[in-house]
Amino acid sequence: MRTVTTESITQSFIDYMGDDTDERLRFVLESLVKHLHDFARETELTHDEWRKGLELLFAAGNISSPERNEFVLFSDVLGLSSLVDMIHSSDEVTPSSVLGPFHVLGAPELAVGGDMRGDNEGDAVVVSGIVKSDTGMPVEGAVLEIWQTAENGLYSGQDDQQAEYNLRARMTTGTDGVYLFSTVRPAPYVVPEDGPVGELLRATGREPWRPSHLHFIVTASGYWTLVTEVFPSDDPYLDKDAVFGVREKLIMEYQPRNNTEELPDELAIKTALKGQTFYSVQFDFLLKQIHQPEET
Amino acid sequence: MRTVTTESITQSFIDYMGDDTDERLRFVLESLVKHLHDFARETELTHDEWRKGLELLFAAGNISSPERNEFVLFSDVLGLSSLVDMIHSSDEVTPSSVLGPFHVLGAPELAVGGDMRGDNEGDAVVVSGIVKSDTGMPVEGAVLEIWQTAENGLYSGQDDQQAEYNLRARMTTGTDGVYLFSTVRPAPYVVPEDGPVGELLRATGREPWRPSHLHFIVTASGYWTLVTEVFPSDDPYLDKDAVFGVREKLIMEYQPRNNTEELPDELAIKTALKGQTFYSVQFDFLLKQIHQPEET
Repeated sequence: MRTVTTESITQSFIDYMGDDTDERLRFVLESLVKHLHDFARETELTHDEWRKGLELLFAAGNISSPERNEFVLFSDVLGLSSLVDMIHSSDEVTPSSVLGPFHVLGAPELAVGGDMRGDNEGDAVVVSGIVKSDTGMPVEGAVLEIWQTAENGLYSGQDDQQAEYNLRARMTTGTDGVYLFSTVRPAPYVVPEDGPVGELLRATGREPWRPSHLHFIVTASGYWTLVTEVFPSDDPYLDKDAVFGVREKLIMEYQPRNNTEELPDELAIKTALKGQTFYSVQFDFLLKQIHQPEET
Repeated sequence: MRTVTTESITQSFIDYMGDDTDERLRFVLESLVKHLHDFARETELTHDEWRKGLELLFAAGNISSPERNEFVLFSDVLGLSSLVDMIHSSDEVTPSSVLGPFHVLGAPELAVGGDMRGDNEGDAVVVSGIVKSDTGMPVEGAVLEIWQTAENGLYSGQDDQQAEYNLRARMTTGTDGVYLFSTVRPAPYVVPEDGPVGELLRATGREPWRPSHLHFIVTASGYWTLVTEVFPSDDPYLDKDAVFGVREKLIMEYQPRNNTEELPDELAIKTALKGQTFYSVQFDFLLKQIHQPEET
């Protein structure tokens, strides 16, 4: 396009795409480039600012590795990850929230009622609930992947002092859809600040903190996979989560207790908790059914 | 923001920024994030598409090195680099165009009239013109950095067969503002296709070609630096430059000639060209003066 101008360049980009371009790809790229160009035009982006942006991307590439993805972190702190989650969330079921970079496959199976505490320090918490269909019926055979930080705010995998699957488990529901386990309170933590994302947070006076949470992936045959996190209502960082992961419906109360009588018998540590103060948390998961096309 | 929604998340991002945030940075980030979020909302960007985008960025980081910047190439093929150039170009002077990744510092000084051909194959071209102020006056002491591809479409630095400064020079104008040198015709070439940018170009049926061009950086005391490229009018890729660098005012004609009588005497290869066919190119650079604030 030899006659390209600040206005016509967007259409030139669109015109460059071949007729065989996948329709959805064309639609997404058109929108992406329109917004990218509008951003540059609106801000009259300078060469120095353009260079700075490219430097941040280059630095993100440099600090990224198979174990650390700074681009995902950029997406997180810019709100894009949460936005994509919310766009595809349904109001009738449990909201999804960010997966984060700390999930690993292969955590050991824990029976319903089992103890995930191991030798971790921290207040004991009894977590329980029912995995339900959007119709309200309990879901049998649902599999929950559960992971969380230790008291120091680190996940196993980030921390040499923790065993490979410390504070990680996999649990399968029975006919009643119930899940139940004991653990320690997870801790708030900061997102990695030693890369370009940290630079952005500091330049804009932002908190690097995430409120404490339990991570869950819930899968069951015939249902959409749910990736989510559950937050305690008393966490000081609920209103300033660096990655915008908190949703009203994902906040639960840590109830302080000292009466073990009310605890279900399946709870492995029921007797051990006698005479102690502990917390209990109740949270049901509502899964969205995959509807088959009606037969004709 | 525990009540964050697909709509409110953009304002949440803005509200997160501290009061001490630099005003311009705040303005640029607001615009960036509004457009990023609007893009996701308009396209209802899926998790798979989001993942694919992040994979492309991660791959760009992997293939980038101090010698190759895939992020700059993304900016180039999306039209952002050229757009930023045009936003800050003035109609009254020579338009700027993309710097590209192949400029290196330290090219040897060539006297006005000198020969840059070395032992390169290709048609001889005599390039000349005047470096002028936006007032039309010749600029003395302007420095031109000149670089171009060899006949194989590669720059020195990309190609082990070429000497370090092959087809690169630095020239300083005299009182008449004239620059003049002989070289060989530059060749069209393809942008690197072995990374994620190549994947994008293939998926959208786009040409990876750039029309042939001579690169110039022109600097002079009291003037804004001009980074530009000059294209021959008969190049087959003028209307499909992969990086949108062509501007009407940057197209010049390669005039075929066989009469050396008209050539200036300062041209080192004047005698050698006798009886041969060669090309001549005439292109003046108009530089924009830096205006000092008026004295009060």
